[in-house]
Amino acid sequence: MPKVSNKWPRPSQSSLQRRVLRHPGRIWVLLILGSLTLNLVMIALLASLYEGEGTPGCKAERSILVAEEKKSVVAAPQQQSTAEELVSAEEISVSSTSGKRPASKDAIINLDHGDPTMFESFWKEMGEHGDIIIPGWQAMSYFSDVTNLCWFLEPEFASEVRRLHNLVGNAVADGHFIIVGTGSTQLFQAALYALSPPDAPEPMSVVSAVPYYSSYPAVTDYLQSGLYRWAGDASMFDGDAYIELVCSPNNPDGSIREAVLKSRNGKTIHDLAYYWPQYTPITDAADHDIMLFTVSKSTGHAGTRLGWALVKDKNVAKRMIKFIELNTIGVSKDSQLRAAKILKAVSDGYELPVSQNNHRLFDFGRQLLSIRWQKLEEAVKASDIFSLPDFPLALCKFTGEKTGTYPAFAWLKCEKEEVEDCEDFLRKHNILTRSGRHFGVEPKYVRISMLDRDETFHLFIERLSMLHH
Amino acid sequence: MPKVSNKWPRPSQSSLQRRVLRHPGRIWVLLILGSLTLNLVMIALLASLYEGEGTPGCKAERSILVAEEKKSVVAAPQQQSTAEELVSAEEISVSSTSGKRPASKDAIINLDHGDPTMFESFWKEMGEHGDIIIPGWQAMSYFSDVTNLCWFLEPEFASEVRRLHNLVGNAVADGHFIIVGTGSTQLFQAALYALSPPDAPEPMSVVSAVPYYSSYPAVTDYLQSGLYRWAGDASMFDGDAYIELVCSPNNPDGSIREAVLKSRNGKTIHDLAYYWPQYTPITDAADHDIMLFTVSKSTGHAGTRLGWALVKDKNVAKRMIKFIELNTIGVSKDSQLRAAKILKAVSDGYELPVSQNNHRLFDFGRQLLSIRWQKLEEAVKASDIFSLPDFPLALCKFTGEKTGTYPAFAWLKCEKEEVEDCEDFLRKHNILTRSGRHFGVEPKYVRISMLDRDETFHLFIERLSMLHH
Repeated sequence: MPKVSNKWPRPSQSSLQRRVLRHPGRIWVLLILGSLTLNLVMIALLASLYEGEGTPGCKAERSILVAEEKKSVVAAPQQQSTAEELVSAEEISVSSTSGKRPASKDAIINLDHGDPTMFESFWKEMGEHGDIIIPGWQAMSYFSDVTNLCWFLEPEFASEVRRLHNLVGNAVADGHFIIVGTGSTQLFQAALYALSPPDAPEPMSVVSAVPYYSSYPAVTDYLQSGLYRWAGDASMFDGDAYIELVCSPNNPDGSIREAVLKSRNGKTIHDLAYYWPQYTPITDAADHDIMLFTVSKSTGHAGTRLGWALVKDKNVAKRMIKFIELNTIGVSKDSQLRAAKILKAVSDGYELPVSQNNHRLFDFGRQLLSIRWQKLEEAVKASDIFSLPDFPLALCKFTGEKTGTYPAFAWLKCEKEEVEDCEDFLRKHNILTRSGRHFGVEPKYVRISMLDRDETFHLFIERLSMLHH
Repeated sequence: MPKVSNKWPRPSQSSLQRRVLRHPGRIWVLLILGSLTLNLVMIALLASLYEGEGTPGCKAERSILVAEEKKSVVAAPQQQSTAEELVSAEEISVSSTSGKRPASKDAIINLDHGDPTMFESFWKEMGEHGDIIIPGWQAMSYFSDVTNLCWFLEPEFASEVRRLHNLVGNAVADGHFIIVGTGSTQLFQAALYALSPPDAPEPMSVVSAVPYYSSYPAVTDYLQSGLYRWAGDASMFDGDAYIELVCSPNNPDGSIREAVLKSRNGKTIHDLAYYWPQYTPITDAADHDIMLFTVSKSTGHAGTRLGWALVKDKNVAKRMIKFIELNTIGVSKDSQLRAAKILKAVSDGYELPVSQNNHRLFDFGRQLLSIRWQKLEEAVKASDIFSLPDFPLALCKFTGEKTGTYPAFAWLKCEKEEVEDCEDFLRKHNILTRSGRHFGVEPKYVRISMLDRDETFHLFIERLSMLHH
């Protein structure tokens, strides 16, 4: 409580006593009336504040939003989603269990997507530092900053991106253009567009070493572009001109990656979505030609659909911007304003005095993920039918400590000889995962999200622990 | 002020007087102490509210946002933007004057884009009804509603879309799937993807009658898709299989359009971005297979990058959703939550009692545009070198009145014989417009935005009035 009360004038007690004794009735009445009037004024003021005049409309607004939190799953356990709801066939297959909490002990546990809801509890703790209000008349224009090459980039988002990279030390932002995108997926396509000559006789080959992120092939090929086409495993590629996708730490297996091809005519796109201290030690500031990041994985705000690219070459940056102009005429300003606020809260947590913001995202994430990984490793060891990759410790320049690797996905291998298809095996136990097939390798592997909410993760560990040889 | 004060217990005056008379000292002291204590508690409460604990963090937030309103143009007048800033070559060419207020009487007036900043003043008047707050932990998941075919569609946005169409009567939403997109530009591409068979020997021909929206060719062809390709003027098209784009009211010329091709194998996409009562009489509820809308033109929120499609066929809807999954893994939830609030405020303005919301967007828009059109027509008449299209009056079912047509763009023709290139002619007078060439017709025509801020529009009329034969 602030000590405002001390500031109110208070006549000295002796003088008060004297006056009261001289005119007992009049003084008392005046004092009471004054005090009661002040009471009434303040009651009215408080009431109007809470009833939605002026700022605390926010309060009402927030309660509405809070009340709207998604209903929990009511579908009966054991009941698979209907074929109709599974859009499947191609990459992203959404079922009625996607993004939901399992409703009961034997409910379907959906760990197919990397939905980062693990971070919700952190942002609830963060409180208002992470909230944003956008007035109705704000951010209406198409344009954010026409003095910037990327005319749809909100300046405060750009400056929070630079600030965060400086803080974390995971990438060199200086000397790079920042390009904002509708998630890093859009930026990935913008980069393909930028790196493919418009008049080449053949589409450019797009490659990535196995196991590669399962979306790369579908996102490259869905429009059957004449500019580029998916050409599979980078290690098997035999040619001179190509675009190599380097995901590091790698989705799905968490390994640290470098380009495997080295031709002078080749180009690389570095997908650094997971190069943050909660997942892996920050060993160096990455300094590549094109680096992609996203709030989905850095802060957990997947629904905001916001990514950014750091791009060295001006002409490549221009072509990427042109892609985003043609694809979506820029990027949601609401998402950018919100992401700016979110990134600011993250940096503030490390740079402001603890009294102003003591919420440290990367500490929260690493701590929670290290516990989860420990539990998973115990369950896997006990089961005697699965295995997990090993990760070395390394000095993290951000924390200044030797830290472990706690990837956002577990790359689980089924060691049981009679099980060829691990996804299928786990599905029989109502655990939905993504088969190694989608990542260019054998179905003995599956990818499992480690970023879901606590209750889902615990249920998963519980169920996994019941599977024995 | 709410009448909360009346609810506080107040002993009857006579009993109060009696007690005061009997024990004057004790009662008075108790009353004063009670009242003072209440004062202190409430002062502390108010102070804590204003110092940033709890909701009124919103207040601080809003002031920050308000303070951040874009700086006015400081570039010297007469100074064209450098070639470097003009990304040009293809469709959207952004210059340092895009979206800015002209700084002086002879500054460049940029009316090339349809930036709908005219609506800012309406939303300032609207006040908090249009504001939104998003708590840091909200809307983090990729998923909005997995029970919906369009799993990334926020339910409240969908219901406000249906509500608005019911109110305005411009389109039949019942019996249609709602698909949300990152602006209608993304939905247009989603529709091309959905309507083009994946295994056809030839790309599908995409056509539209001249003058057609200048973005259609570039957006269709930039990826050199094997699925579809731009085939020009629909009236000149000779073939059986095609996708016809029908923009009505038409961008650039404001005319009401129907499909010009009638083959049974042909498909149509109806771009109804401007089919709202501020621009044109609502003569009927449109009921086509695929209809596209956007908040950019309906409410003026271009920066929110949000559009929606009404789609009859389930399989077409599924393919469109698949496109958006692959293109951007869904659509910004922040934009959807904001758009829901904005659409709600618009409907509330017509459906709630005037005491709760008396802000009527379509009345505001039609009134302002009718004044602008009158001014433009006067200036054009006085100049004797330009002409404008004629529009018939029609009964608007929304207003119940016979109303005029006030398109978002003026389609100006230069009637001066020696002037072949109207865009060039106007550029010499520091008025930036978009040449008829981009719309598939002669450069005698230009498209001019009618949706800019007042000061820009007035300067434009002033300068136009100085041009004489």
